[in-house]
Amino acid sequence: MTVPDRRLTGPVEVIGTGLLGTSVALACRRAGLEVLLSDLSADHVRTASGLGAGRPREAGDRPQLVVVAVPPALLGEVIASALAASGAVVTDVGSVKGAPLAAVRGVPGAERYVGGHPMAGNERSGPLAASATLFDGRPWAVTPHAVSSPESVALVTELAELCGAVVVRMDPHEHDRAVARISHLPHLMSVLTASRLAGAPESELTLSGQGVRDVTRVAAGDPALYAQIVAGNSDAVLGLLGEVREQLDGLIAALESGDSGAVSALLRRGVEGTRAIPGKHGGAATPAGSVFVVVPDEPGNLARLFSDAGESGVNIEDVRIDHDPGRQVGVVELLVSAGLADGFAAALESRGWATHR
Amino acid sequence: MTVPDRRLTGPVEVIGTGLLGTSVALACRRAGLEVLLSDLSADHVRTASGLGAGRPREAGDRPQLVVVAVPPALLGEVIASALAASGAVVTDVGSVKGAPLAAVRGVPGAERYVGGHPMAGNERSGPLAASATLFDGRPWAVTPHAVSSPESVALVTELAELCGAVVVRMDPHEHDRAVARISHLPHLMSVLTASRLAGAPESELTLSGQGVRDVTRVAAGDPALYAQIVAGNSDAVLGLLGEVREQLDGLIAALESGDSGAVSALLRRGVEGTRAIPGKHGGAATPAGSVFVVVPDEPGNLARLFSDAGESGVNIEDVRIDHDPGRQVGVVELLVSAGLADGFAAALESRGWATHR
Repeated sequence: MTVPDRRLTGPVEVIGTGLLGTSVALACRRAGLEVLLSDLSADHVRTASGLGAGRPREAGDRPQLVVVAVPPALLGEVIASALAASGAVVTDVGSVKGAPLAAVRGVPGAERYVGGHPMAGNERSGPLAASATLFDGRPWAVTPHAVSSPESVALVTELAELCGAVVVRMDPHEHDRAVARISHLPHLMSVLTASRLAGAPESELTLSGQGVRDVTRVAAGDPALYAQIVAGNSDAVLGLLGEVREQLDGLIAALESGDSGAVSALLRRGVEGTRAIPGKHGGAATPAGSVFVVVPDEPGNLARLFSDAGESGVNIEDVRIDHDPGRQVGVVELLVSAGLADGFAAALESRGWATHR
Repeated sequence: MTVPDRRLTGPVEVIGTGLLGTSVALACRRAGLEVLLSDLSADHVRTASGLGAGRPREAGDRPQLVVVAVPPALLGEVIASALAASGAVVTDVGSVKGAPLAAVRGVPGAERYVGGHPMAGNERSGPLAASATLFDGRPWAVTPHAVSSPESVALVTELAELCGAVVVRMDPHEHDRAVARISHLPHLMSVLTASRLAGAPESELTLSGQGVRDVTRVAAGDPALYAQIVAGNSDAVLGLLGEVREQLDGLIAALESGDSGAVSALLRRGVEGTRAIPGKHGGAATPAGSVFVVVPDEPGNLARLFSDAGESGVNIEDVRIDHDPGRQVGVVELLVSAGLADGFAAALESRGWATHR
């Protein structure tokens, strides 16, 4: 076996210098590639360029790879024109893959298009929020279609790897069904839950705890962006919403008739669903044990807690900070392997922390 | 003004020595009160007693305060018989307040009953999971009804304070509407979302990220317990489920007809709802800024990160650890006051951490 030569030698053109596009550009620059920037907003290009993400594209530039990072509603059109403009391989970073694919089907050069979807981003947007590390350790779906050439797939895969992401190869339609299930539906359910809080009497919200915060967190995402995303994946989303409506009708009927067996069955199905989510590092989910620690809310206390936790040698799988409603004290939940939780709690107790399991 | 004498002098009887009952008992013992334990399970009483939570109740004991901590379906019956058995003040720790109240209405001694609901608990159950610190900093709803005597209310309030909780006084029916909105409905919506993952093709779940984990986390709760809780609060829950069904129908219609304005309006309503949740320490929610840090997943690294963060002097409001699917690297999201995020990220960078905003 020989190690294949690096194929991605640039230049890479990035169309759309928002958060994702500029982050891809910065990661390519970090890898020493030449990067060409274009955007409808000359301001964005200037900003991205000033951040060291590349230089404005000029007539006569010949990119090896074009990365389309425009808003979802414009994806298909911009991908098609990028395929027509040169012989470059073209990819995109959009959250939905079926709609852009439909736009390139039958277009000359369609074999040079391979979709992509990095599972990264945050509540901010624009080039100033960009970072070369945005994709570190995140999944990046690479979605070849029926006529994508192997060379194009290899180039797009190399781009994702160069950005530090973990490549997950999927069929475009499988991808769209997947994100409907693990992203778009949860988002809409979160919105339906959060909507019940809008306009509710303030006194009814004082008891809000970590549960409702968790369920509604993603509902804070940009409405304009998510409206485009779900509209672009409406077939898969509608299928799941239909399932939800059916199950919701069953739940309402069961509660109205006092059929506790049916309610329990529904709740058990939910438990089963939480267990289906892959665990950390792609392995099976391992049961985690929680240790709750009372931490006065002052700078330095968390550091001391984590230092003490580190000395115990137990790896912390997850952390949650529960916000109390009336005191400058927080309860920090540390999740560790279930079998280690008791010993971990004892180790923290011996260092003076009040804990409970 | 004079400081009132302490009224709660014991003995306190705890009926039901599971997680909550035994934790209340331990907190009372910590405060030096005599505690009497009873439970249908003699094993549970022995275990709780062995943990130092008190001694088994005997004939002739005369409790000052009885705390009923039995499963939701038994609450009304046990409260009524506790009121009849002695002249003690009676409270409970159940998640729903209307049903037990109905059971004591018109019963002699009803003025000695005051409902309570500590917002605490975790995924474990039974006396071995109990802790005197379980209620530290957590809200504890105290719900007097129309004929509760002021002395009874004062005694139950003192119990909650003695347990370290933050007392929130509410009308029982207002309480039930509140928990339907901020706990029971979010739980059911989480279950409906998680149910879509059960039995889904494994390949569709590989891209699962923090969003779906957050939305579905509470769905992992004990189905038998939650079935009793929602059944005991079905009026308030059904009202909200009806609102959800109506909005869901609107969403489905909007997606089917491509009415993006209606979809956007729904998403904006969700954003508004997330902003209605009270912020940390009961104040208005303050905008938080996220700083993402790449952390190799080995013991000690989190400690080093929090130590470096502590030295920056910036208080960390919340922490999330994002699990990557294929590498021993985690992305840790640190939430700090929005205005401090840029400087905080720079401080971490200067200590060698790769961050992005």
